[in-house]
Amino acid sequence: MSRNRWEPRARHRCEVSLEERGTRVRSAREPRGDASRTAWPFGGARGIVYLVGAGPGDPDLLTLRAARLMRSVDAVVYDYLVSDAVLALVDPRAERIYAGKRQGCHALAQDEINKLLVALARRGRRVLRLKGGDPFVFGRGGEECEFLAEHGVPFEVVPGVTSASGASCYAGIPLTHREHARAVVFATGHRKDGSSDLDWETLARPHQTVVIYMGLTRLAEICRELIARGASPSLPAAVVERATTERQRVVTGTLRDLPGLAARAGVRPPSLVIVGEVVRLREALGAFDADAKRLASRLEFAHA
Amino acid sequence: MSRNRWEPRARHRCEVSLEERGTRVRSAREPRGDASRTAWPFGGARGIVYLVGAGPGDPDLLTLRAARLMRSVDAVVYDYLVSDAVLALVDPRAERIYAGKRQGCHALAQDEINKLLVALARRGRRVLRLKGGDPFVFGRGGEECEFLAEHGVPFEVVPGVTSASGASCYAGIPLTHREHARAVVFATGHRKDGSSDLDWETLARPHQTVVIYMGLTRLAEICRELIARGASPSLPAAVVERATTERQRVVTGTLRDLPGLAARAGVRPPSLVIVGEVVRLREALGAFDADAKRLASRLEFAHA
Repeated sequence: MSRNRWEPRARHRCEVSLEERGTRVRSAREPRGDASRTAWPFGGARGIVYLVGAGPGDPDLLTLRAARLMRSVDAVVYDYLVSDAVLALVDPRAERIYAGKRQGCHALAQDEINKLLVALARRGRRVLRLKGGDPFVFGRGGEECEFLAEHGVPFEVVPGVTSASGASCYAGIPLTHREHARAVVFATGHRKDGSSDLDWETLARPHQTVVIYMGLTRLAEICRELIARGASPSLPAAVVERATTERQRVVTGTLRDLPGLAARAGVRPPSLVIVGEVVRLREALGAFDADAKRLASRLEFAHA
Repeated sequence: MSRNRWEPRARHRCEVSLEERGTRVRSAREPRGDASRTAWPFGGARGIVYLVGAGPGDPDLLTLRAARLMRSVDAVVYDYLVSDAVLALVDPRAERIYAGKRQGCHALAQDEINKLLVALARRGRRVLRLKGGDPFVFGRGGEECEFLAEHGVPFEVVPGVTSASGASCYAGIPLTHREHARAVVFATGHRKDGSSDLDWETLARPHQTVVIYMGLTRLAEICRELIARGASPSLPAAVVERATTERQRVVTGTLRDLPGLAARAGVRPPSLVIVGEVVRLREALGAFDADAKRLASRLEFAHA
């Protein structure tokens, strides 16, 4: 095998034809080094899938492992929730494939994504499967891993900062607090098969924080159902739009008035909904945090 | 103000005497640059506290922001849960203060930590307050921020990969899954004031994953209470010891037999408890993930 040319040693049936999907089949990136003595599956093709959490949006919140992998893979398959600022850090020579999944607008169905990952790996690609937040929190990472495992494709899962943590820290709303919230529940506003799958009884319990990923489109229903199950209409709640990005916006209110306030502010997806007494802390913490960031950037400027 | 010597412009009352705490007062690190035109509080002293999540243990899971701050601060105040491998990345010239908080064995009480952070910032230090996981998930980060805000100290909060995500990805146990868990609940085994504060009714609900931070010492109680509230004794559950570190160990079983299995394996804190159908997925995913890591490190070796 030549050192600078990639040639698969064996051919495998591709379950998704890459040509049909309109993607470039040959990676512009040449393989580095001689791995011919490594016992890889697929007759020597070195395909592997890295399932990586890209964090909530701010590229500064990528993990060191994610940042390193972004510079060394042959292809990246990314979701709607991966920010442009994050994508800009991927090696420009890597093939880019958009897998979509904006609400009701899928570039690829989940089944097609699964098959695409297998097909790329079988062609010997080092594939970065990049997901917003953490791959095992509402990322369907589990389903992709099951499919990869069934098809004998090596993979590695790299956790990321989940969007709830990003929103929490950047908005000044702690998710837990000894005085106010002894637990935190993450649920998703996305429905499976169109039916509601939120467990309202659990979400309405007191002394906890509730975070609903992609909750904006169901915000009115969420507030109404929680009140119907005994939550106080004056329970604080917030919507965090595009958490941790330069376009982050936070709207706070109560279960009673938040839907109206969010609509008036024109908040749009992707947005997280946070419900709980901890939202009250934002008033003190959010302002100070912003001050600190201004000071810190001035200081870094002075140091530059 | 000389460029290479740090001199506070104003003196402030220190609520905790640093000398009394036995810590070094003068940082070995010289300030860089001339920030004399920056409008800092405290009469020109440039103190600031960065409240930073150090992630679950593997230093590769630090965020880019955390890694950069670790190289540029004057002092670090760190918890028991911050791994040695992570601490090794802090600038060796930074002052190191251990704040402790192993269960029942506090180097500093929370109130003392709060006062220490204020005192350091008022002396002009750039302080890294380093916490295991994410600072706003069972980190008491909210309490520290409230105290800093009350005392006029600028601060910034940097989210981290929470330990549940680290354990989940490194053990091959997705926290959510469309078939098995539509929500995930994080609770803590730590008691406030010695009384139980776990909401067993919430934790025993079906179709969700429950993660109990620092849950090992209460594992028998957790399994017993969940069964008493209707959870199946055969519900899968796992203990993840020292998640994401080289010493990670995972013990899986059911609510019925996990306490015995964990005791026989000699599992010790810090450990997370994960309860839910998703634990079943580990059998397929965990093994493959480990294979992928072996392959990946061989590949990186071949490329080196």
